[in-house]
Amino acid sequence: MSRYKLTIEYDGAPYQGWQWQDHAPTVQGALERAAERINGEPTEVYGAGRTDSGVHALAMTAHVDFKKPLRSDKVRDALNYHLANEAVSVLDAKDVADDWHARFDARERRYLYRLIDRRPKLALDAGRVWRLPMKLDAELMHHAAQDLVGEHDFTTFRDTQCQAKSPVKTLDAITVIRAGAEIHVHLRARSFLHKQVRSIVGTLADIGRGYRGADYIKQALRARDRTACGQVAPSDGLYLVSVHYEDDAE
Amino acid sequence: MSRYKLTIEYDGAPYQGWQWQDHAPTVQGALERAAERINGEPTEVYGAGRTDSGVHALAMTAHVDFKKPLRSDKVRDALNYHLANEAVSVLDAKDVADDWHARFDARERRYLYRLIDRRPKLALDAGRVWRLPMKLDAELMHHAAQDLVGEHDFTTFRDTQCQAKSPVKTLDAITVIRAGAEIHVHLRARSFLHKQVRSIVGTLADIGRGYRGADYIKQALRARDRTACGQVAPSDGLYLVSVHYEDDAE
Repeated sequence: MSRYKLTIEYDGAPYQGWQWQDHAPTVQGALERAAERINGEPTEVYGAGRTDSGVHALAMTAHVDFKKPLRSDKVRDALNYHLANEAVSVLDAKDVADDWHARFDARERRYLYRLIDRRPKLALDAGRVWRLPMKLDAELMHHAAQDLVGEHDFTTFRDTQCQAKSPVKTLDAITVIRAGAEIHVHLRARSFLHKQVRSIVGTLADIGRGYRGADYIKQALRARDRTACGQVAPSDGLYLVSVHYEDDAE
Repeated sequence: MSRYKLTIEYDGAPYQGWQWQDHAPTVQGALERAAERINGEPTEVYGAGRTDSGVHALAMTAHVDFKKPLRSDKVRDALNYHLANEAVSVLDAKDVADDWHARFDARERRYLYRLIDRRPKLALDAGRVWRLPMKLDAELMHHAAQDLVGEHDFTTFRDTQCQAKSPVKTLDAITVIRAGAEIHVHLRARSFLHKQVRSIVGTLADIGRGYRGADYIKQALRARDRTACGQVAPSDGLYLVSVHYEDDAE
């Protein structure tokens, strides 16, 4: 048996999220079908986490075991060959130890959320960016977001269906910056709660448009109440950027 | 009668180019149907130029006449309302003089061509970037491209079907730069010949991958022969960036 770490890019739009489902297209399902073609038997692909329906990934990580040892570049190319009709691409495959685990060994996840504040509809980036038809104050959003950094009870900012045992998480960094016509929100943490990023971004957008004050984040955290959350940003603008491990070179 | 200058973004993928056709979806066709809904009669939309099938635009310009004077923001919003099911968006509408002409008054066109040199297929940017599965030397491509700047007979770099009277054009600037994982080619000229950008980029890619020498551009120009052109780059990576006019503010 040989284990491979996979780095995976995908367009979330055609999928009902990462996790395998019986009767719906998912990213994990597409990868497992491709892996089965190589392995000759049903083969599980373990992701570093789940992403929701419609959420994109620039570099999700996962691991997969093949019965026969294969050159890692052959693993990448063979998976991509069988993924020809899917909006999923294996960017890299790397030989790892038999006990390496994409989820349990992950030390940090990075996300990007793309917003654009313009009135005209999107022609080129439809489904890739959240469009708000009013001006947003990115500096104010950045300032407000800093209240989220550190260890907090994020009950307000997680889905009521979230299955994590504790709502307490540590957000390592959040940056809101203008990037041309867009506004980008960058987030880093060891792990995130269900819909945490979209809940944070939606609430920050309420602040950026002037519907809430910049001090609202403190108040929302203190409330520990889901109803104190602003709107939940749509999946369109959300990208899993990367997953980091202790043994990463950098 | 009131004339409006339109600035238009579109995804080229679903369209058989800009120019109206009887039995195929085109960008001009989509805009003229929307304009007819506002004007109550068949209404022509005059573009600054034509783009080929599959070519995208960040900001094409055009002009249109409406019988009744309308506030320019209403023109933009009403057109976008009728373009709801099209991959076309009107970014801006501006009241202009009755003799202002999108094509004849244009002084400069800017194009961007996006390439990516990576082996794995594209999941997120399929149809938006030209992928080449081998490394390209962007610096070498930039160096080679400088031989194209200035007035030249571009016979080698235009489609055999090109309808322009003369193959002599002046290329004002061409820049090839690494932009993250991509390579971007920026071009500026008063006007371009049919398939000129794609012919130039395809030939530069041949140089970037080492299939041709950096001095090949000089040789290809001198040949004044279409068969001296390298491969023609696909429409996927080509974007009309902007069209400039004498009366532009900047």
